[in-house]
Amino acid sequence: MIDGFHDECGVAAVYGNSEASNHVYLSLYAFQHRGQESAGIASCFPGERFTSHRGRGLVSEVFDEKKLSELKGSIAIGHNRYSTSGKAILENAQPFSIEYARGRLSLAHNGNLVNSHHLRRELEQKGAIFRTTNDSEVLLHLIAHNRHDTFIDVLKSVFSRVRGAYSIVMTDSERVYGMRDPLGIRPLILGELEEGLVLVSESCALDLMGASFVREVNPGELIVIDGKGYESIELLPVPGNTAHCIFEFIYFARPDSYQFGSYVHDVRKELGRTLAREDSTEADVVIPVPDSGIVPTLGYSQESGVPFEMGLIRNHYVGRTFIEPRQSIRHFGVKIKLNPVRSIIEGKRVIVIDDSIVRGTTSRKIIKMIRDCGAKEVHMRIAAPPTICPCFYGVDTPTRTELIAHNHTLDQIRTYITADTLQYLSHEGMFASAKGGKEMFCSACFDGDYPVPFDEHCHMQD
Amino acid sequence: MIDGFHDECGVAAVYGNSEASNHVYLSLYAFQHRGQESAGIASCFPGERFTSHRGRGLVSEVFDEKKLSELKGSIAIGHNRYSTSGKAILENAQPFSIEYARGRLSLAHNGNLVNSHHLRRELEQKGAIFRTTNDSEVLLHLIAHNRHDTFIDVLKSVFSRVRGAYSIVMTDSERVYGMRDPLGIRPLILGELEEGLVLVSESCALDLMGASFVREVNPGELIVIDGKGYESIELLPVPGNTAHCIFEFIYFARPDSYQFGSYVHDVRKELGRTLAREDSTEADVVIPVPDSGIVPTLGYSQESGVPFEMGLIRNHYVGRTFIEPRQSIRHFGVKIKLNPVRSIIEGKRVIVIDDSIVRGTTSRKIIKMIRDCGAKEVHMRIAAPPTICPCFYGVDTPTRTELIAHNHTLDQIRTYITADTLQYLSHEGMFASAKGGKEMFCSACFDGDYPVPFDEHCHMQD
Amino acid sequence: MIDGFHDECGVAAVYGNSEASNHVYLSLYAFQHRGQESAGIASCFPGERFTSHRGRGLVSEVFDEKKLSELKGSIAIGHNRYSTSGKAILENAQPFSIEYARGRLSLAHNGNLVNSHHLRRELEQKGAIFRTTNDSEVLLHLIAHNRHDTFIDVLKSVFSRVRGAYSIVMTDSERVYGMRDPLGIRPLILGELEEGLVLVSESCALDLMGASFVREVNPGELIVIDGKGYESIELLPVPGNTAHCIFEFIYFARPDSYQFGSYVHDVRKELGRTLAREDSTEADVVIPVPDSGIVPTLGYSQESGVPFEMGLIRNHYVGRTFIEPRQSIRHFGVKIKLNPVRSIIEGKRVIVIDDSIVRGTTSRKIIKMIRDCGAKEVHMRIAAPPTICPCFYGVDTPTRTELIAHNHTLDQIRTYITADTLQYLSHEGMFASAKGGKEMFCSACFDGDYPVPFDEHCHMQD
Amino acid sequence: MIDGFHDECGVAAVYGNSEASNHVYLSLYAFQHRGQESAGIASCFPGERFTSHRGRGLVSEVFDEKKLSELKGSIAIGHNRYSTSGKAILENAQPFSIEYARGRLSLAHNGNLVNSHHLRRELEQKGAIFRTTNDSEVLLHLIAHNRHDTFIDVLKSVFSRVRGAYSIVMTDSERVYGMRDPLGIRPLILGELEEGLVLVSESCALDLMGASFVREVNPGELIVIDGKGYESIELLPVPGNTAHCIFEFIYFARPDSYQFGSYVHDVRKELGRTLAREDSTEADVVIPVPDSGIVPTLGYSQESGVPFEMGLIRNHYVGRTFIEPRQSIRHFGVKIKLNPVRSIIEGKRVIVIDDSIVRGTTSRKIIKMIRDCGAKEVHMRIAAPPTICPCFYGVDTPTRTELIAHNHTLDQIRTYITADTLQYLSHEGMFASAKGGKEMFCSACFDGDYPVPFDEHCHMQD
Ligand SMILES: Nc1ncnc2c1ncn2[C@@H]1O[C@H](COP(=O)(O)OP(=O)(O)O)[C@@H](O)[C@H]1O
Ligand SMILES: Nc1ncnc2c1ncn2[C@@H]1O[C@H](COP(=O)(O)OP(=O)(O)O)[C@@H](O)[C@H]1O
Ligand SMILES: Nc1ncnc2c1ncn2[C@@H]1O[C@H](COP(=O)(O)OP(=O)(O)O)[C@@H](O)[C@H]1O
Ligand SMILES: Nc1ncnc2c1ncn2[C@@H]1O[C@H](COP(=O)(O)OP(=O)(O)O)[C@@H](O)[C@H]1O
Ligand code: SF4
Ligand code: SF4
Ligand code: SF4
Ligand code: SF4
Ligand SMILES: [Mg+2]
Ligand SMILES: [Mg+2]
Ligand SMILES: [Mg+2]
Ligand SMILES: [Mg+2]
Repeated sequence: MIDGFHDECGVAAVYGNSEASNHVYLSLYAFQHRGQESAGIASCFPGERFTSHRGRGLVSEVFDEKKLSELKGSIAIGHNRYSTSGKAILENAQPFSIEYARGRLSLAHNGNLVNSHHLRRELEQKGAIFRTTNDSEVLLHLIAHNRHDTFIDVLKSVFSRVRGAYSIVMTDSERVYGMRDPLGIRPLILGELEEGLVLVSESCALDLMGASFVREVNPGELIVIDGKGYESIELLPVPGNTAHCIFEFIYFARPDSYQFGSYVHDVRKELGRTLAREDSTEADVVIPVPDSGIVPTLGYSQESGVPFEMGLIRNHYVGRTFIEPRQSIRHFGVKIKLNPVRSIIEGKRVIVIDDSIVRGTTSRKIIKMIRDCGAKEVHMRIAAPPTICPCFYGVDTPTRTELIAHNHTLDQIRTYITADTLQYLSHEGMFASAKGGKEMFCSACFDGDYPVPFDEHCHMQD
Repeated sequence: MIDGFHDECGVAAVYGNSEASNHVYLSLYAFQHRGQESAGIASCFPGERFTSHRGRGLVSEVFDEKKLSELKGSIAIGHNRYSTSGKAILENAQPFSIEYARGRLSLAHNGNLVNSHHLRRELEQKGAIFRTTNDSEVLLHLIAHNRHDTFIDVLKSVFSRVRGAYSIVMTDSERVYGMRDPLGIRPLILGELEEGLVLVSESCALDLMGASFVREVNPGELIVIDGKGYESIELLPVPGNTAHCIFEFIYFARPDSYQFGSYVHDVRKELGRTLAREDSTEADVVIPVPDSGIVPTLGYSQESGVPFEMGLIRNHYVGRTFIEPRQSIRHFGVKIKLNPVRSIIEGKRVIVIDDSIVRGTTSRKIIKMIRDCGAKEVHMRIAAPPTICPCFYGVDTPTRTELIAHNHTLDQIRTYITADTLQYLSHEGMFASAKGGKEMFCSACFDGDYPVPFDEHCHMQD
Repeated sequence: MIDGFHDECGVAAVYGNSEASNHVYLSLYAFQHRGQESAGIASCFPGERFTSHRGRGLVSEVFDEKKLSELKGSIAIGHNRYSTSGKAILENAQPFSIEYARGRLSLAHNGNLVNSHHLRRELEQKGAIFRTTNDSEVLLHLIAHNRHDTFIDVLKSVFSRVRGAYSIVMTDSERVYGMRDPLGIRPLILGELEEGLVLVSESCALDLMGASFVREVNPGELIVIDGKGYESIELLPVPGNTAHCIFEFIYFARPDSYQFGSYVHDVRKELGRTLAREDSTEADVVIPVPDSGIVPTLGYSQESGVPFEMGLIRNHYVGRTFIEPRQSIRHFGVKIKLNPVRSIIEGKRVIVIDDSIVRGTTSRKIIKMIRDCGAKEVHMRIAAPPTICPCFYGVDTPTRTELIAHNHTLDQIRTYITADTLQYLSHEGMFASAKGGKEMFCSACFDGDYPVPFDEHCHMQD
Repeated sequence: MIDGFHDECGVAAVYGNSEASNHVYLSLYAFQHRGQESAGIASCFPGERFTSHRGRGLVSEVFDEKKLSELKGSIAIGHNRYSTSGKAILENAQPFSIEYARGRLSLAHNGNLVNSHHLRRELEQKGAIFRTTNDSEVLLHLIAHNRHDTFIDVLKSVFSRVRGAYSIVMTDSERVYGMRDPLGIRPLILGELEEGLVLVSESCALDLMGASFVREVNPGELIVIDGKGYESIELLPVPGNTAHCIFEFIYFARPDSYQFGSYVHDVRKELGRTLAREDSTEADVVIPVPDSGIVPTLGYSQESGVPFEMGLIRNHYVGRTFIEPRQSIRHFGVKIKLNPVRSIIEGKRVIVIDDSIVRGTTSRKIIKMIRDCGAKEVHMRIAAPPTICPCFYGVDTPTRTELIAHNHTLDQIRTYITADTLQYLSHEGMFASAKGGKEMFCSACFDGDYPVPFDEHCHMQD
């Protein structure tokens, strides 16, 4: 069961560094939160064969010193993947490496193609065989079947057929390529090492590697990196608008990352400030649901003057496999993750702030915990509008009907989660906080306006 | 190399619950931060043999569903252990279970005996053999060699010979026992489940289990739990003073735990407030070294009016094994854990607050990171006095000479860590914040006044 | 380094049994000797999706109870693989499962295609992408690219393009297919369970499953199994001759298996008898190099009258990973596997019989061991002719120049292995023992007469 | 469920070799058959602390290169352990290392003390605590409690109190000690490396290490090895007789080992010859139950003239964990291990020879397999007398009532196992084959004459 919105991937690529795979490893670690089910790295010396290793689990579990040291070469690409259980996690793990008529290719992508079902059927008619349910495989087949002369023309032709969200890193063992869809839905950042160039999903990876930020890859742009530096090719025509995923600001990205022209922290804090401006609840204390709620809550506090407190403590060991003891001690659910601080809450009117309510079950449990500590009132505030639609652009979301806000009124939700009051951020407030209008962002999960039309099968694919 | 002060253990015991070992498992998970190198649980039905499992690693790694389900019975005790590498971690893992003349005994302890070297030599002269370097083994030998009639008399006789810090849980497979040293150095809490009674090192474990808080076990008290409830025995005479480890408030315990008569959060926040009162630095922003620095920094901010910001982001995956890439990307050290948010820091006068400076290397790296983000000034504040002495009461500390504050002046430390200014909390400020005087707390690591005299060998033992 | 001739694979398929994957598991265990580097099983219910699991190591290591129980369905196919180190063992592991225009297909094969390099280049020109260096992938691409109407016509068209040795099992999730090359190079056996039908590489698997032997699949024959039983289709035209791998009789197959019209044991024993008839050495004792040498040695002893003794003991734990201690105790090599019995050998004239000499290093060590035990004379006899050529039909062999018999005279080999005398079986003796002439068998590794011409690249493929 | 007689242990010790632990590792591998549940090695430099590693599983599973390389030092002792499931395998794993009044001691033993229950109770009265159910712990406590002046006097005093079977290796980190009980029940061999001396349970380990055989340690003898060589001390008075375990010859030891003055192979073959002399069955073929049955069957064949054939093939992968598929394919039991060769058996009168019948279930299955192959007659012959009593001297045996020969007549057994005829070797035949009389051997499991009286509890201990 999908219990929230989960980013599906993070990608990284390094060209021209004697420790290419080490740097990719650091990147994957830095944005581990973008995908925790599998990780993979492929590396090579220019013009030579790929070595690769992929496995289930966290980056730090998949790679050990020995495996990392075997990934030699000055070129490397890597991938973190989130994936719901039950699927062939390892088969689908990326990077995806092939040999074909032009030689070798290894590819990793973050996003989701909305016409891949259609493309796949078409490719199958041409004799293509599929081993995975992965968009990367579709892309590689498209490249291999394409008859254009130069590789750049091939890419132009292929990507003009593809629809959806994608930030892709790729290598043919000679060059490294980075490509972003024409609406710039998912982030992709170019950075510079002392030795070599890098492409990463989130800028926090640059900090960990000690790389400097160069710029974001533009929507529709292809970056080609080789020994002479990087070249920019405007591969695809871009419309006037963009469709940056606004949920990256709200929840997915780390606060210390920079993307879509802003620091995530700053947007997230402004979301909290705006939420406060739209609100006038009297309260003794405002507390975040940590960690994602901390920054908006700080904004809320600074704007409203309601004192900020760490009323909920997040267990440091969350995320590791945990055996839920059976029988009598069931249903403690969220307690494994969060525990309230009684002295902060007891006898107080409490505002609690989170980034979103997905199914409502977590919020309900959090509010119960807070009440059990003796809160006088519990007011839930969400630093984003209600999530009413699923995402088809590379985010794992519950189905429409599982989203509590899809088919319940504000008051029904409030009743379900047992809050005294419940308030979401307005749509305008969200856009204003993110410093852009609706024409700059995708906000489909909040309003159903999907910037890229999708075929009916797209949600069937993984 | 020990890079800080580390609590050595956490203990838990459950009596009279059909899922005793499950509850102990939850406890160990709740205070995983007290010991991360090994974990163990022993369980039994009243009057029957122990089943036990111990292993290296985190609680969630040591136990899986199968292993936990094999630990049947209504009685269970458990243990988390911190231990520096190189020692026989598994051999030393607790609980320690034996058979001896009186029957069976299983014991887990948190603390350190300062005369165990002496006791051990004496026991060896009587023919005792030792398989570990563990105080538990010494205690069990003392119990087994003791000739008193009743078990209570045995315990009275044994514990009157033992000196040091100890919070012990124990079972003879009939009853569960909890015992705390006469100065109450380490915490031990009694709680009540719907079914059965529990003893735990930290009260946050009660919350996770859904147990209610009964009271702290008193210094020198023996709690005996059986089918009829619990009985309190004043086993050892207690002096007028106590010596609660003040470092538990400052760093070890979770903020949501209650101990020594206060919520850890409240004390920690007061430490920050007092620090602010002793300070008058002008600054644009005050940021914590997360997570332990968050609460005192909030206090500091509220008292001083300097705005609180989350200027450093703590990676969620810290604590998992991580391969430090070799060669060129060395020395990034603290970056794996923390990353600054440029937009908060750039061009600002920054106060950064941590709970302690041990060797100084971490603080130095943090300050460098902050400066690299463009801070105008960096002022380091510590929400405790300088740590100048090692601990011999169950905490793994660097040696005296490794403690930077032991043999450097404030200004030397400031220079080393490259701060513009450096200020510690005063001793008086610390005691005031903890709501007690020097007669209530151990503060030896801050002032060298060791409340229990130790023999010369005690620091040689693990 | 390849130290001998190794069969590359074993395959198994079950149709119509409620425990299909369990039966495939047993088969893989029964002919584990055919491939020890990886194992895999894919299963399904008729018309439904495949579940599959593949892994590195022995069958018993790759599968545990949980994994096996997840492989549900009444159809299953499986594969054991031998593979030299350094290659992408897991990627190449079979069965190989795909989705394509016609639906689903899962395939496992034993053998080697000699024109796969050529076919692969051709497929790549049509846009095919390759993830492995595996013939199965080539076959599946050929099937997917083929435009014939019925699946049987597709197979006919595909297999008429393919050259080499292959015994293939396959399922489209509706039916199970078994196919053998027109020369019948590798074995493939049809058996019958109480419930359902099976195809296996070696008949010993039938015994373990409790299946009865039906017959060998014929050269060029396609067996199609569905709910109504099995149908035989003469898919490919067959020449008058066959080319059964005679090395299967000599070494690869288990003695208790039946193939190519004979029990392996009977042929192997006759090889020994014939060897004796061609020899007249006087000796006190004849000893086998166990286990493969035991049966021919028994034949030799019975024919010659020289007493058979177990002069060399084979360690039961051979085959498990073993750390060769370094430094001073190096070079004990074969001792890990074999140890002589001094009382059998001391003071005796010893004949020692093995199935083949590949590089000569092992024989040299064995003879040294025997001499160190005090043998008066050591006469080496080989129950096959000299191996002078590599195999390109699904057997991992050293290169031509590594084969000692390729470029050394009998006397040079004798000198190298330090035998008093050395004698091989004659070519006529080999064919006579196997009850067929040169027209029935492949014997290319003994005489260089390759029954299927191969292109220059074939030995470059894995 | 114990399905046969299993040796409980093998021990090894090396003194004065720079690769001491490597040599011990090789020894444990050589006699892996003596104990397959756990393995351990402790090593040290003279006068320094022990490093040790112990684990569950086969030697090759417990140790990898890294672990072995950490076991530094010129002194090492090691241990293989057989143990029935359900017991605390790892806790009980040896070597057992302690610190005590005299310093350090590490000990490993093969055998069983029959008065350990009594000794343990006595030690407990003196205050000893027990962590295991292991005789080693009893021995170490006895040593630690003993008040004699010199270590040799301590050992003399301790071993004169101990009753049972034991072959012990031990080190105090200065010297290595080897000790054998006064009746010489279990084997212990002294060997010489190019550099240093070794003690091993079976001489086959000397061959693998490249050590030369010096002599067997004598009953009641203590061997003390230090830098000057070895010293022999007649520690205990020995009676006129010995009680070498005759089952070592019949089954436990490897045929290539030398012990109790003979090569195991020679005795085992003579058992077969004598069996033939006591028999006059007409048959077409005599086949062994491999591997233990091979040598006696060869003897039988040579004496009787009935042709020897390998009618049953032993799977090479026996011994590895194997999942018994559930439901319909149950009960194939022995097939996993053995498979008949039809062409040898069909239409023949078959004699099948094994070393023993324990419960009868295995023999029954073997005979069924042989009959299913079309044997005309099946005659079971056992190269030893009926096993009617359990062993208390270090062998894991079923209880008395589980031994089919304990309470069934020859004819009842024959009927149960469905043989046409059944014949055991006579007691006289057994002693004659082993070249000694009843006064030289323990044969208690065949006749109930236990050479060392045991207390009632001895079979309760593990
Ligand atoms: N150290 C961090 N501090 C704050 N937010 C973080 C941190 N690391 C990751 N994040 C962001 O917060 C999200 C995780 O939020 P959190 O509330 O901690 O967990 P949950 O997924 O349970 O809501 C991540 O997706 C990421 O964007
Ligand atoms: N969720 C939490 N929030 C705040 N403090 C915590 C939390 N969990 C544990 N702690 C406390 O903080 C200490 C860990 O502090 P932290 O700064 O996160 O790591 P470090 O040990 O690197 O300083 C623990 O010993 C514990 O007392
Ligand atoms: N139990 C067995 N007895 C005899 N031969 C076997 C047995 N199991 C497998 N074989 C055959 O013997 C070959 C292995 O021979 P063996 O001499 O034991 O090992 P090696 O590969 O080292 O020569 C296998 O490939 C197989 O054909
Ligand atoms: N390579 C070998 N050849 C013959 N006997 C062996 C060999 N290795 C060990 N043995 C002996 O045979 C015994 C194992 O006999 P075997 O019949 O193979 O298995 P089982 O224990 O199933 O009867 C071992 O305990 C050992 O004494
Ligand atoms: S629907 Fe749009 S805004 Fe929502 S998660 Fe998907 S891409 Fe982001
Ligand atoms: S010296 Fe005292 S205050 Fe410091 S850590 Fe140890 S017990 Fe706590
Ligand atoms: S060359 Fe022919 S006979 Fe030799 S191994 Fe290969 S297929 Fe068998
Ligand atoms: S009873 Fe005697 S002969 Fe039998 S196994 Fe035990 S020691 Fe050996
Ligand atoms: Mg959150
Ligand atoms: Mg900290
Ligand atoms: Mg062989
Ligand atoms: Mg046997």
